[in-house]
Amino acid sequence: MSDDSSSRIVAGLRDWIAEAPAGSRLPSTRALVARYGASPVTVQKALRTLTSQGMVESRPGVGTFVRAIRVARPHDYGWQTAALGAPNHRIPELPAALESVPNDAIALHSGYPDRDLLPERLVRAAFARAARTEALGDRPPTAGLPDLQSWFAAELASATPAGITPAAPGDVVIIPGSQGGLITAFRALVGAGRPLLMESPTYWGAILAAAQVGVDVVPVPSGSDGPDPDVLARAFEQTGARAFYAQPSFASPTGALWTPALADRVLETVRRYGAFLVEDDSAHDFGITADPRPVAARDDGGHVVYLRSLSKSVSPSVRVAGLVARGPARKRILADTQAESMYVSGVLQAVALDVVTHPAWRTHLRRLRHQLTARRDLLVASLREHAPDAQVAAVPQGGLNLWARLPDAIDLGRVVQECRSAGVVIGPGHEWFPAEPTGQFIRLNYAGPNPGAFPDGARVIGRTLAGDGRP
Amino acid sequence: MSDDSSSRIVAGLRDWIAEAPAGSRLPSTRALVARYGASPVTVQKALRTLTSQGMVESRPGVGTFVRAIRVARPHDYGWQTAALGAPNHRIPELPAALESVPNDAIALHSGYPDRDLLPERLVRAAFARAARTEALGDRPPTAGLPDLQSWFAAELASATPAGITPAAPGDVVIIPGSQGGLITAFRALVGAGRPLLMESPTYWGAILAAAQVGVDVVPVPSGSDGPDPDVLARAFEQTGARAFYAQPSFASPTGALWTPALADRVLETVRRYGAFLVEDDSAHDFGITADPRPVAARDDGGHVVYLRSLSKSVSPSVRVAGLVARGPARKRILADTQAESMYVSGVLQAVALDVVTHPAWRTHLRRLRHQLTARRDLLVASLREHAPDAQVAAVPQGGLNLWARLPDAIDLGRVVQECRSAGVVIGPGHEWFPAEPTGQFIRLNYAGPNPGAFPDGARVIGRTLAGDGRP
Repeated sequence: MSDDSSSRIVAGLRDWIAEAPAGSRLPSTRALVARYGASPVTVQKALRTLTSQGMVESRPGVGTFVRAIRVARPHDYGWQTAALGAPNHRIPELPAALESVPNDAIALHSGYPDRDLLPERLVRAAFARAARTEALGDRPPTAGLPDLQSWFAAELASATPAGITPAAPGDVVIIPGSQGGLITAFRALVGAGRPLLMESPTYWGAILAAAQVGVDVVPVPSGSDGPDPDVLARAFEQTGARAFYAQPSFASPTGALWTPALADRVLETVRRYGAFLVEDDSAHDFGITADPRPVAARDDGGHVVYLRSLSKSVSPSVRVAGLVARGPARKRILADTQAESMYVSGVLQAVALDVVTHPAWRTHLRRLRHQLTARRDLLVASLREHAPDAQVAAVPQGGLNLWARLPDAIDLGRVVQECRSAGVVIGPGHEWFPAEPTGQFIRLNYAGPNPGAFPDGARVIGRTLAGDGRP
Repeated sequence: MSDDSSSRIVAGLRDWIAEAPAGSRLPSTRALVARYGASPVTVQKALRTLTSQGMVESRPGVGTFVRAIRVARPHDYGWQTAALGAPNHRIPELPAALESVPNDAIALHSGYPDRDLLPERLVRAAFARAARTEALGDRPPTAGLPDLQSWFAAELASATPAGITPAAPGDVVIIPGSQGGLITAFRALVGAGRPLLMESPTYWGAILAAAQVGVDVVPVPSGSDGPDPDVLARAFEQTGARAFYAQPSFASPTGALWTPALADRVLETVRRYGAFLVEDDSAHDFGITADPRPVAARDDGGHVVYLRSLSKSVSPSVRVAGLVARGPARKRILADTQAESMYVSGVLQAVALDVVTHPAWRTHLRRLRHQLTARRDLLVASLREHAPDAQVAAVPQGGLNLWARLPDAIDLGRVVQECRSAGVVIGPGHEWFPAEPTGQFIRLNYAGPNPGAFPDGARVIGRTLAGDGRP
């Protein structure tokens, strides 16, 4: 029994173990004795060494096994830094709207409606039905299920004035959620390094999409009345941009709803500059005291690329949206969609179609309108009573949010932080500005869980504001 | 009654109609008489004019309505050409593998398994269960459901030799299908205009993804034994590339399965050049006479970015894949995924997890192995008997395809076309080459519908080949 022959066995077994999957059984002691021409004691010693090194474990009466659970070694992936190089563009931090917060917090920050506002029973039934259909085994066409394309087209056509050729089913591309649609539209219509006009403030997901594609964002100021068409024209003139991103119906965060006259002036402007309007109609189903007014319904010249998501109003599990475009723009968008995602799950498309064509969908939307009215009015009243310094310039006619201006002297970061410490989560306004914020704002979502806590939330905001700058 | 006042009413009503949604009722004749100070006869004439122009329709006893169905005007979207400019890069045409063909054709072209080879009953049951769970109303984290992350990590860990730190659940990012994963990996690790080494021939979806991202593709020859590590090293040396895309287990189209020795040499090479291996393990569940050998299981230095899709083996409706990466590379990939798609439907993730952790999944995989064996062997035998000119260099140990070489003198386009006319659809080999094809090949899928027709299909291929160049 020499240490040398034990080391030799250890070295040999280490090589063997390096090739073996975790859990493999080592050759028996008898086999090792034969293979290495060593005594059983030497073999046992080698196995003990390997055990102490964490390479193997022995199970008495069964054998010795390559260890399944191994201690993770700390790694430095520094070499990757050279391989990856500097990123092409900075992707913004995760916004507050996506954050998860403790269950007992008063959550006014989210960008999403509470499940209480979703047609959950309808969606469950639709999934159960889809599980029994042929949709399950099929790869749908890249442009989407024809019946769902028709539904999106008919929805737009129902708002189309006479004399305008309404969108056809073949103009629709079904995409896996509106985030992908924004990226596809910005990539296909604009491209990295080229200018894109954007409402400011605007939806943070669009700001994220613009950063991801690497377009050169040009903010166009937009308040509760929407953008000023003259300012828009000047921006087109000065930048040579060929696209303008906007939310004409219940914009996030301002809640603006464009008048038909404004819609026509914006359309005239994009026509004059040979440009696209990328219309994000993501709050389509969240009208309160007004209906949405898709600008795309007023255009048949291929100037509006229209996006409408169902994930927000149907279910976060139903990642389905419709994109409407015409001419070469649609061809580019379809090619981009194809290369990025091939197709959208047939089951998700079938579920979306089932829900929105079910008679109970209309009933749900009516009930939703009542719920949103009550929630919006309660939050507005609570702010007026308990936080008069948070000024809501215009009570929105739809959408999920209030956009409140705070006094200029306020330290917004401190307010957000103090509210949070007191259990109230609010959206810091700067996240909705594609460039520097032009004022001190907070966004308050009235579609979150537990609306009964709105007065308490407003009290906390009011106290925090009252405390600011007053020692 | 003057023509002039009728024209005036027509003009006025056209303006009104232009603002009105389809189906709106026009003011009554009495109201129009009053508004325009004209006689009822003049108003009726104006309405007839609008009816003949297709603007309105009258329903006797009810009223006159803005027409719901309008004739589409032909449009020229020529202005878009200037706005869009030339595309940045050419996206390849739709490959044969995605084509739909008539039901009675012998379809040997597809890239997907027939539904007969999918666990359809398991998937139906999983959807039905998911419809009853909480997954429905939740937005899962961007990186995915923790249990599904753990499953992907455990699968890799089970093939990890001792001494290598296995992948942890936190290394996994759940993505909506492997196509999106390839794009994300190419974009995050390489980027437009930078070199990417790719096996040649290789999976057409990866070629499409490379074109979409705009990377500069450098082909590395790879046959039924996989790539030559020396040639790979030279390509790294000459191009300065920092990434290599490959399918080490049952590659498409060649069926190659890397030996452990080759895997280690490729790993050594990427380490030496400070580079990534993008490992596409999309045929993981399609082993026939061998098991897959993920190279990622042999690396804990963050050099392998690993992709495994479930859409192909679970269901085309379950667009779910796992991507495993470590270090800064994973951070970039996660940020890209977040910006592109936010998150993957919780229901689809729950269904995927339910299926692959169900005891019947193992049973299904065993049955699948028998089915694939029988199908592969039948197609190989049919070709040997009826189409000896189509030479299968190596019978694959897994995957869904045979890669057959045709005589050099053949006109491949003619062969594909003639087979198609005779009801047999085959994949023309050039679609799998990222650059010029290096020989005359066809890809034949043995996982499509109706394997009983393989002998007939081989006869048609044989006859077509025999006819070529022989007048």
